[in-house]
Order: sequence, then structure tokens, then C-alpha cells
Amino acid sequence: MPMIIDCHGHYTTAPAAHQKFRDAQIAGLKDPTAPVARPGAISDDEIRDTIEKNQLRLQRERGADLTLFSPRASAMGHHLGNEAVSNAWTRVNNDLIKRVVDLYPENFVGVCQLPQSPGVPIANSVGELERCVRELNFVGCNLNPDPSGGHWTSPPLTDRHWYPLYEKMVELDVPAMVHVSASCNPNFHATGAHYINADTTAFMQFIEGDLFRDFPTLRFIIPHGGGAVPYHWGRYRGLADMLKRPPLEEHVMRNVFFDTCVYHQPGIDLLVRVIDIGNILFGSEMVGAVRGIDPRTGHYFDDTKRYIDALSLSSAEKERIFEKNARRVFPRLDALLRARGL
Amino acid sequence: MPMIIDCHGHYTTAPAAHQKFRDAQIAGLKDPTAPVARPGAISDDEIRDTIEKNQLRLQRERGADLTLFSPRASAMGHHLGNEAVSNAWTRVNNDLIKRVVDLYPENFVGVCQLPQSPGVPIANSVGELERCVRELNFVGCNLNPDPSGGHWTSPPLTDRHWYPLYEKMVELDVPAMVHVSASCNPNFHATGAHYINADTTAFMQFIEGDLFRDFPTLRFIIPHGGGAVPYHWGRYRGLADMLKRPPLEEHVMRNVFFDTCVYHQPGIDLLVRVIDIGNILFGSEMVGAVRGIDPRTGHYFDDTKRYIDALSLSSAEKERIFEKNARRVFPRLDALLRARGL
Repeated sequence: MPMIIDCHGHYTTAPAAHQKFRDAQIAGLKDPTAPVARPGAISDDEIRDTIEKNQLRLQRERGADLTLFSPRASAMGHHLGNEAVSNAWTRVNNDLIKRVVDLYPENFVGVCQLPQSPGVPIANSVGELERCVRELNFVGCNLNPDPSGGHWTSPPLTDRHWYPLYEKMVELDVPAMVHVSASCNPNFHATGAHYINADTTAFMQFIEGDLFRDFPTLRFIIPHGGGAVPYHWGRYRGLADMLKRPPLEEHVMRNVFFDTCVYHQPGIDLLVRVIDIGNILFGSEMVGAVRGIDPRTGHYFDDTKRYIDALSLSSAEKERIFEKNARRVFPRLDALLRARGL
Repeated sequence: MPMIIDCHGHYTTAPAAHQKFRDAQIAGLKDPTAPVARPGAISDDEIRDTIEKNQLRLQRERGADLTLFSPRASAMGHHLGNEAVSNAWTRVNNDLIKRVVDLYPENFVGVCQLPQSPGVPIANSVGELERCVRELNFVGCNLNPDPSGGHWTSPPLTDRHWYPLYEKMVELDVPAMVHVSASCNPNFHATGAHYINADTTAFMQFIEGDLFRDFPTLRFIIPHGGGAVPYHWGRYRGLADMLKRPPLEEHVMRNVFFDTCVYHQPGIDLLVRVIDIGNILFGSEMVGAVRGIDPRTGHYFDDTKRYIDALSLSSAEKERIFEKNARRVFPRLDALLRARGL
């Protein structure tokens, strides 16, 4: 039996005091005379309660072993406030993840959010990445390609703007999941449009650019099954050809991986039919974007393990999706597991 | 044998004088002392040459009968200039389509672009729609949900902003294809990101809104196989449920249709597996976004008829995709064909 590693989980169920701090922080933006917001106390028991009733319960029910756990993506809200606000909020979020990991070290491994802020150099996020990896033993980060929250005012991910972060990612040997946050553009529903659009957009940027020539070992996970990309794989192969890029397998797919956050069997079937098994990492995004039960199956939409289990793949192939690819893409996770004899 | 109706073709091969007019128009924006740009003469022979070598040749080679033909989508460029520029350019484009249709009435039926311009009321586009339908016998229009070209500054398609156009569409009984144009946001490659994102975005807007309660007979085609939607059909069913919307079949799919511009067999297989046959219209977008030959098949990526032909569907089901759905969604096309005894 492989270890079942879920590469995509967020702390969407954090104790109320956490959101209360955020609300105070945001309120403070409108009222400069208000005292600076301070995080309220959260006890270990409160954390245990929110985790055991939700992510840990679902891990057990669904048969997953370990989740790469990061702060709630929709709440990163890089577009709110300024750099100082983003810094304070990010640090509190990452520290909270660290507490979850310390309480349940066998079940969760940390992935950090970054203190991005529109117009602020990405170099200013490098320190927090380094702190989370070196001091908190996190194994990766979530990188927001659009800190403006749906206005897309930053340069493409292949622009040198982002290179200071990439240099540190390579040095630390950690990947990034490309993950936007909430949308403040009324055109884009967060989880129904902005997330999926960002996934698709990032992939096309990687086709257009030459990023992996400059950073041959840089690695990205594009979540939500790669956005629209596998469904339109012919389009992307054709566009790469029209743009005189090398085949996608060489040009992008040595460095880019898709998770399995696709919430129905036909979507997962397509993903596995089209994308090399070595590029697919098990993920569920639970407890996340879609929390209900599919009336057609009687199971949770986001119980993606069931869709993988149902595939007619060899056990070796499933082991790659569930465990081996994650250990390869997140070498610090692999080291951590090896140190435990796993 | 069904009639093979391609619901998605653009005049991407227009004679050079057409682009020359556009270039002069754009140049005039920077130089107010320049004379107002006027369309250059284009002979029937020039039009024949560009059509017979391209769209008509490919229709014959691939076995299609008729294309719903509209101006080049990426060249609509609603973000360029102002309303007067958009008006002039749109009228010239639609008139050129009319000439193609008059030269090859059995092979092409017109679909118009609209003279949209950022910040301008959509009511100002109603006159051109009416002209194209009533005077030029066009059967539908292309509606750009983002005339800003990648900055997404208009309200969602479910907003009352758009209602004047919808009222006229209902009155004329013509559908719209939701189709963006070029992107002036460097994050979004036009055909690789902006198009697909817009498709996905529009669908999610329809889920969030209640547009079809106000307009029960309004119809949209979402091109490029519905963007990311069929691949993420479980996500959209789950989001509709979370947002307390009716099931998608009732809430959206009586009014929204997807074309088959998905450039590989696995994508088309998924589309047909997930989406009701009654919601799928044959389309190829040729000569369009992806012009090359797929080295894996030896055939053009955008020869989408081959993918439909390969499906294990009944001939009655294929007839719906190739002909009947298009005649239902475009009643004026049906009337036109019936008048010819077809």
C-alpha cells in the first residue's frame, strides 16, 4: 500500500479568533486611529477541535495519510491593505499551520503562504519563505500569480520580476503551488472562475516563456487538475508548435505538475489519459471549494481518492500518483519521511 | 447524412486591404491631424481567392457543408480607440462577411461582431445587431464579455448593463456566442488563456446569476468546448449546489450551448460523456487559433469533425451535434435552410 499524500489542503476551518484578527486588521485600514490589530489567543484544544472534526476525520474516512497543509487560499487576500498588513497576516497564518503540524506531525506537513502585496517586489517575500522552510520545516509555498485579486496587474510568472523568489526556491529545493486568492473583480467567482483561470493562465505563460531554461530545477504544481489545460491538451500542443516552442514534454512538463482536484470521475479519467502519470499528484483541496455530496454518487465531490481508486491503472502507477511523485516534487517532504523510516 | 454545420468560423484570412484600413484607423488615433481612415477597395476576386484557398478548401477536404461565419475574433479589438472607431471597424467587418455570404450563399451564413467599446452602454450596439439581422440576414452575433481586452472592467454578463442587447436578441430570436477578442494584458495569451478563461468565467456568471429567469429564451454558445467547464463539471455541479442554485440542467443548460472546438480526441470524448448531446454544437474555429498538424495523428488539430466521427454515438445523436442543435439554437438559420428546401 502506498502512503496517500494529499498535496493540496488548506486550513479552511481555523478557529474563530483567527478570522477575528483578520477582521480587526481590515477594519484598521479604514480607521487609522484604531489600535494595531493583534492576534487573539488560540488554544491547542481549539486547534485540535477544528482539525479533528474536519480534515483529520476526513483523512481517516477517506483513507489518506498525510496532507500538505497551507493557509486558506481564498483568505490570503494579498490585495487587501498594504505590505505591512500582508506581512502580519501571512506570518500569523504560517505560524498557525506550524501549530497544526506540531500537534499532528504524522498527518500534516506545512506549506506556507507568501506576504505578497500588489506592486511590492517579490524579493520581499523571500525572507518569509526562508523562515518557513528553515525554521518551521515547511516543504513548499503557495505563489499567487495575481496579488491584485482579479485585476491581473503583475507581470507574467515568466518575467524577471519573480526571479528573486525562484532563486530562493531553487536554493531551498522547494516547489510552489500556483494559487490565487479571493477575487475582488465581480466578473470572477473565486473558486468557480478565478482559480481555474489562473491555472490555465499560468500554464500558457510557461509555454510562451523560457523560464525553465533559466531555472531547470524549478518546480510548480498547477492545482485544480491544471485548470482547463488537460481538456484542451491538443490546443496547448498546437499552440506550442505555432509559437515554435519545443514539445510540451520538454518545454514545460519537466517542471510543472497537476494535482487531482477535479471533482468527477470523467475529469480524472481525462487527466490520466492525457497527462503523463509522472506529472500527476494526488490532491483533494479538502475541506475546500466544494463541500457537498454528489447526488449522482452519494459521495463527497472532493473525495478525489475514490476517482483515482477507480482508475484501471497498475498499483505501481497509482503509487506514483499517491506518493512517489509528491516525494519527488517535494524533496524536503521525502527527507522528512525518510528520517521517520518511511 | 446530416448537413454538417460548423457554428464557429471566423474570416481570419481577409484580404490585405482590410487590415490596412484597420492599421490606418489605429494610426489615426495617435495622430489627430491624419485624414480619417477609409476602407480600401476589395474586389470580389480577392475575396474569392482568400476564401477558396482557405475556408472553402478546408470545408470540402473535411466534409463540412456550411459555416456560421463572423469577423476575426482576435481582431475585433474593442479595447482599441473609442466608440466611433469601434463602430466604423465593426460595420466594415460585418459588411465584408456579407460579401462572403453573397458570393458563397450555400457555404456561409453570417454572424456579426458588435461595436462594443469599454464603458459605452451596450444599447449602442443594438442598432448594428438589428442591421445585420434584418438587412444582412445574419443569424447571430458574437458578444464580447470583456471589451477592455483582458482587464475585465465591465460588469458580469448577468448584470442589467447587458439587458438592452438581450431584449433585442430575444426579439430577433438570435443567439450570441460569448467571445472575447485580443488581450492587451500581458498575463493572458489571447487564444491560449484569455479565450478559455472568458468561456469559464461566463459559465460561472450564469450559475451565480438568474439571467434566464428574466430571459427564458435567451441563448448563448460558449465556444472552445465551454472553456474549462466540462472537465470540471463536478466542480460546477457542486458549486451550484453550494450556492443554492437549481441543478445546472434547469438553471443554465436550457440556454447555454458548447461548441466542439477542442483539439484532441480525449477532450471531445469527455465533452460528449459529460454534457447532454442537445447542448453540443459542431464547431472547428477554422481557420483559427491552432493551424498546425498534430504529429500524433497526422491531421490538423482543428479538424474537429474527425473527433466527432470517431465517437461511438448513434447517427441520430451525431445528426444533432452536426445539424439539428444548430438549427434549433439559430432559428433564423433554420428558416433560411428551410426556404431552400433543406
